[in-house]
Amino acid sequence: MARNLATLVRDLQRRRGRERRGLVVAEGFRLVSEVLDTGAPVVGVIAVEHAAEALVAAARQKGIDTALVPEREFRGLADTDTPSGVLAVVEWSPLALSDLAAPDIGRRRLLVLDGIQDPGNVGAMIRSAHALGAFATVALDGTADVRNPKAVRGSMGSLFRHQVATAAWREFVDWGKREGYEFWLATPKAEAVGAAAAGPRVALVVGSEGHGLREEWAATPRRLVGIPMLQGAESLNAAVAAGIMLYELSRDRR
Amino acid sequence: MARNLATLVRDLQRRRGRERRGLVVAEGFRLVSEVLDTGAPVVGVIAVEHAAEALVAAARQKGIDTALVPEREFRGLADTDTPSGVLAVVEWSPLALSDLAAPDIGRRRLLVLDGIQDPGNVGAMIRSAHALGAFATVALDGTADVRNPKAVRGSMGSLFRHQVATAAWREFVDWGKREGYEFWLATPKAEAVGAAAAGPRVALVVGSEGHGLREEWAATPRRLVGIPMLQGAESLNAAVAAGIMLYELSRDRR
Repeated sequence: MARNLATLVRDLQRRRGRERRGLVVAEGFRLVSEVLDTGAPVVGVIAVEHAAEALVAAARQKGIDTALVPEREFRGLADTDTPSGVLAVVEWSPLALSDLAAPDIGRRRLLVLDGIQDPGNVGAMIRSAHALGAFATVALDGTADVRNPKAVRGSMGSLFRHQVATAAWREFVDWGKREGYEFWLATPKAEAVGAAAAGPRVALVVGSEGHGLREEWAATPRRLVGIPMLQGAESLNAAVAAGIMLYELSRDRR
Repeated sequence: MARNLATLVRDLQRRRGRERRGLVVAEGFRLVSEVLDTGAPVVGVIAVEHAAEALVAAARQKGIDTALVPEREFRGLADTDTPSGVLAVVEWSPLALSDLAAPDIGRRRLLVLDGIQDPGNVGAMIRSAHALGAFATVALDGTADVRNPKAVRGSMGSLFRHQVATAAWREFVDWGKREGYEFWLATPKAEAVGAAAAGPRVALVVGSEGHGLREEWAATPRRLVGIPMLQGAESLNAAVAAGIMLYELSRDRR
């Protein structure tokens, strides 16, 4: 069984393998522990011998397939430079827009990633969306793979507790208009984002730091929003900016 | 000259080399452009032939030593997996606490990194501190090297525009008390951070996600502050949390 799980993990190192199999790899002690807690469908756990005995025992108790491997072999499976010695393979695929379950009552806040290229940032943003009250995150085409192991790690389990969809830009805009969303575009030096100005349905769109938002937005009704910068600074890390704006948008819920 | 600069960069790949020489490497098109704009003391620029001609010309015009190297050689010097083909070597060392120049008037806000291990996060936090009104960032022992190329990149030039000091924990606490700082410790699930409760001098201390803040804080007068989480989420990325708290603390300045 060890051989099968390890072969599977090697296949999941490639984007195509993750897409075809509908599986992701969650690596690290804290993350695997978190994933086992969420009740996500874990298909297997691989650990270095003696590295994570309690976690391996917990997985076995849940009837999950486990494999112990030598440290050297684990390094070949791990995505991190200094692996903590345990990983889980989890059934997970992004949703389609039509699958998103919106809250029946109250405000709807969506985080939209438009060309975020750093998978660690993608994961951190999913984590922020979950913690700061968005009901879902949508990753548009041009954004790093939400199934990338760095994105899974960056989300710290939020990937399994929060709705994440992928969509092409055109498809998203058509859907968003139909559903009555205001598009709020994060833009350096724009007016300060503020919950007071927000209607019941807001999609906060954050673009890449290098390339910004795609030009097609220019022809779409939208509001440009930003964060006031002090001391002549230009901008913030995209995940930090998204976090602050989500925090500001959630102000009326706190 | 090309040979000398390349040898220098190789030495700067090690922490000891950076410390001994008082130099850091700033890699990437946007960052090198930013660094040349800040007027930071650049001692050399290395680029792949034809990759960054305007930047190389701008550096030469400033009398900066430049070297063009083949792409293959550049990959050996670069810290990134997919290098954009240009880097700058810059004179930079962290300050001591006694060197920090505090604003004469107005509030004093300090960001303190206590064991942040991811150098990219360290850089993002320095960038946030600069943009959100802290007058300096202090990296305590146990935090990743602020001279690490990933930290330099993550700061997106803020390292050269914002005061960054390093200190041992004990030294920092003694200094902070003498200077009249309140220590605000970022803690999941603590009371919400709020500018209204802040005195004139606040040091916001953010710890590692994995290990939290060091135990020695327990014996120090301090306030525990947090960010309200929604939807049962546990925590945020450390850089995102620091950004939101700095934003909240800067509220009275906006």
